[in-house]
Amino acid sequence: MNSVARGVAIACLSAGVAGMMAGCGGNDAHSETAQSLPRNVILIISDGTDDQMITMARNYLVGAAGMLELDKLPMRGAAQVLTINEQDPSIVEYVADSSNGGTSLAAGAITSTGRIGTIPQGDADVQNILELAKAQGYRTGVVTTAKVTDATPAAFLAHVNSRMCDTAANMNANPMSFPANPGCLPDKKANGGKGSIVEQIADGNADVVLGGGKTVFGSTVEAGGMTALESAQANGFTYVSTEAELTAYAGGGKLLGLFANSDLPLRFTGPTPVLITDGPDGLPVLPEAVECAENPASANAPSLAVMTTKALALLSKGNDKGFVLMIENASSDKGSHGHNPCGSIGEMQQLDEAVAIARSFAKKNRETLLLVTSDHGGPVQIVPERSLIAMPGFYEPYSVGYVARLITKDEAVMRINYATNNSGFFEEHTGVNVPVYADSSNLVYTLKPYMKQTEVFTEMKKHLQL
Amino acid sequence: MNSVARGVAIACLSAGVAGMMAGCGGNDAHSETAQSLPRNVILIISDGTDDQMITMARNYLVGAAGMLELDKLPMRGAAQVLTINEQDPSIVEYVADSSNGGTSLAAGAITSTGRIGTIPQGDADVQNILELAKAQGYRTGVVTTAKVTDATPAAFLAHVNSRMCDTAANMNANPMSFPANPGCLPDKKANGGKGSIVEQIADGNADVVLGGGKTVFGSTVEAGGMTALESAQANGFTYVSTEAELTAYAGGGKLLGLFANSDLPLRFTGPTPVLITDGPDGLPVLPEAVECAENPASANAPSLAVMTTKALALLSKGNDKGFVLMIENASSDKGSHGHNPCGSIGEMQQLDEAVAIARSFAKKNRETLLLVTSDHGGPVQIVPERSLIAMPGFYEPYSVGYVARLITKDEAVMRINYATNNSGFFEEHTGVNVPVYADSSNLVYTLKPYMKQTEVFTEMKKHLQL
Repeated sequence: MNSVARGVAIACLSAGVAGMMAGCGGNDAHSETAQSLPRNVILIISDGTDDQMITMARNYLVGAAGMLELDKLPMRGAAQVLTINEQDPSIVEYVADSSNGGTSLAAGAITSTGRIGTIPQGDADVQNILELAKAQGYRTGVVTTAKVTDATPAAFLAHVNSRMCDTAANMNANPMSFPANPGCLPDKKANGGKGSIVEQIADGNADVVLGGGKTVFGSTVEAGGMTALESAQANGFTYVSTEAELTAYAGGGKLLGLFANSDLPLRFTGPTPVLITDGPDGLPVLPEAVECAENPASANAPSLAVMTTKALALLSKGNDKGFVLMIENASSDKGSHGHNPCGSIGEMQQLDEAVAIARSFAKKNRETLLLVTSDHGGPVQIVPERSLIAMPGFYEPYSVGYVARLITKDEAVMRINYATNNSGFFEEHTGVNVPVYADSSNLVYTLKPYMKQTEVFTEMKKHLQL
Repeated sequence: MNSVARGVAIACLSAGVAGMMAGCGGNDAHSETAQSLPRNVILIISDGTDDQMITMARNYLVGAAGMLELDKLPMRGAAQVLTINEQDPSIVEYVADSSNGGTSLAAGAITSTGRIGTIPQGDADVQNILELAKAQGYRTGVVTTAKVTDATPAAFLAHVNSRMCDTAANMNANPMSFPANPGCLPDKKANGGKGSIVEQIADGNADVVLGGGKTVFGSTVEAGGMTALESAQANGFTYVSTEAELTAYAGGGKLLGLFANSDLPLRFTGPTPVLITDGPDGLPVLPEAVECAENPASANAPSLAVMTTKALALLSKGNDKGFVLMIENASSDKGSHGHNPCGSIGEMQQLDEAVAIARSFAKKNRETLLLVTSDHGGPVQIVPERSLIAMPGFYEPYSVGYVARLITKDEAVMRINYATNNSGFFEEHTGVNVPVYADSSNLVYTLKPYMKQTEVFTEMKKHLQL
């Protein structure tokens, strides 16, 4: 039996009366009744999140024996991130970034790091799930805790050669870190391109775009003198900039919500990891073990939960066709880059809240497919407080990276290590396969235990019958 | 619907005629017919194997877009390793070792690192799945690429306060690295204990024990002057020491196979990772990218596949009750400790071969439950060949740990980083949750997407109706 047939059987057995309505009991679950329900996809991307990140968050937030909302999802698999070389796309690379990981997820295309919705050698655009869905009458949305022009949301909203081509002012140079990439010039409108990321969002037709980025939207577009925000408003977007305005917004058109100048504030602040050194007695001087602290600034912007709730309400209200919504907790990865475990953990808590909201929506709204995954792995490692080869008081080896010691929900000390490069300010991604979770409640769906990251796109497309 | 009911539905739909025979189509799949089939558990433990290890193996052996046998397993979940402090068991720790991870898997008990089948504060023994199964008439077996007294197999075959209590000669000291552990003295037979690990194996009743460890079996037992091997033979074990002898063995009693003095030879050798340094131009001097080499010494011992095939044949032959078999590729972890990615990868290839054999056995032999998991996470990180912040030729940050660059099946370069401590000779484990895979073919079984590691024991027990 193939997985679809098996999924049908499971759904029919579990759906009860609702299952009967959807054609269960017959030979074809894709009955007209089932077809007439709105079909929704909610894709949650936890940026830079591998199993070390998830375990760090679990240990901190609920304790080692506790369960995150993530852990309660009924299906779990893994996806292999795939990357190719910019100069020679026949060459495989093993570590992705949010740009090409996001493009894999959004458009099912394997591309090089730094690229947003485009592929090397010709810079061709690859259609993403929001575009394909919109063309068939679905509503579309993007919600993120980053600025909405950041790599992950951009992969669902734009097509440019580099993630650095975010504003018209940034379109004139080849980004230093992608020297072989043709850069932003070919994407300029004057050169026949679609313009910068912020211009493409302003010119676009997504129904809901929520996150940060007031500053990029304050930048001037390539021609005409308007700001990107004015351009978006001219294109029909209603603009909100506070949680109160977001909550009050009654719908009826395209919504752009920008709640911070750049990325949204982190929920938690915490210790800055340090390099451990030996003390005068030859034993390591360890950083103090502390708890994360609430970040008062986080009150200045809506939580991912608030944005998710509103986006789901707006996208589903009076909508017989369905929608596709991408939700991202962006700063789990940004926390990793900046040696900031508490920053990451706060974002993982936001993720968990969004997962609970999405599951609750899916439960009430067939046919909703919920997928939760990541764009790439990260640098976090949970290392032991006491080495297996330690001779306490005599010899205590310690990790060579930046180390933080956090007091968890268990009231125990968890030691986190960041050691992927020697820059001192920016940790790397890692090439590990990332988790994929799904919720099948009320749904004819079985998650593959292992897939290529591009298949997440295929799964969404299949569900939306595109 | 609960997961068992769902599993029944899946099994009945997929099993066809065999399913009918086992009671599918009725309301109760636990029919008498199904009950009368032998019930088998195959537990494969890939030592120190987290998703970074698996991805490293996949990239190297089959390429990033390829699939390992592991990846083909039909169910995938994750297990959280749980560890407690030796001095104060109310204190949670976040990184396990093979002793306490093995004890979680074997006996469902949360214990402190270093402990084998015992718990802190009283040193009580915890009954393991092999003992429980044997008491009910099941056959039992252990197959490993380590010496059979190593921590993981020991957790299924013995009960001692420390993994270091492996021979009678090593029972007189408190191991240095576990200073708070009462050590081996209470486990001495003279003190009313069960003796060292090797003595407990020799005195034991496992039907099949295969691996390395000629040297420990050459050690003298606590009293009587015999070697542990002589003691095992006196206890009814037939002894084989070569692949030819193993293959020729026709069965009929307990089998002890020891094929190396210590651990079995690694399949692959490869580069020794090095610390990267700056060259005179300020740019990093990288180790050469190379392929792993076949290790000629691996011909001196049977592969894990050969041992697995033989163990399955011996345990199942003329056996109406069933069996439980633990299979371990031990040196995936040992490779990590010693900065030896090729050592680990060769063991992962051995694992993959054993998985294929076990799946094939499960397909033909209901009711077999196959579980594949790990005891704890490891230090491996796949880091990028080019940093996201690199300015090639000007600024190229690199990881601060021991680095190897391997040429993979993709003919591409994969960079591996080990940076969990500054000892220079022994990397740490990490606290990440580990994968759990299952095969349900012909089986009424659904794998939980997330579990505590101790639940692996519960799942085995449930399957064997213990």
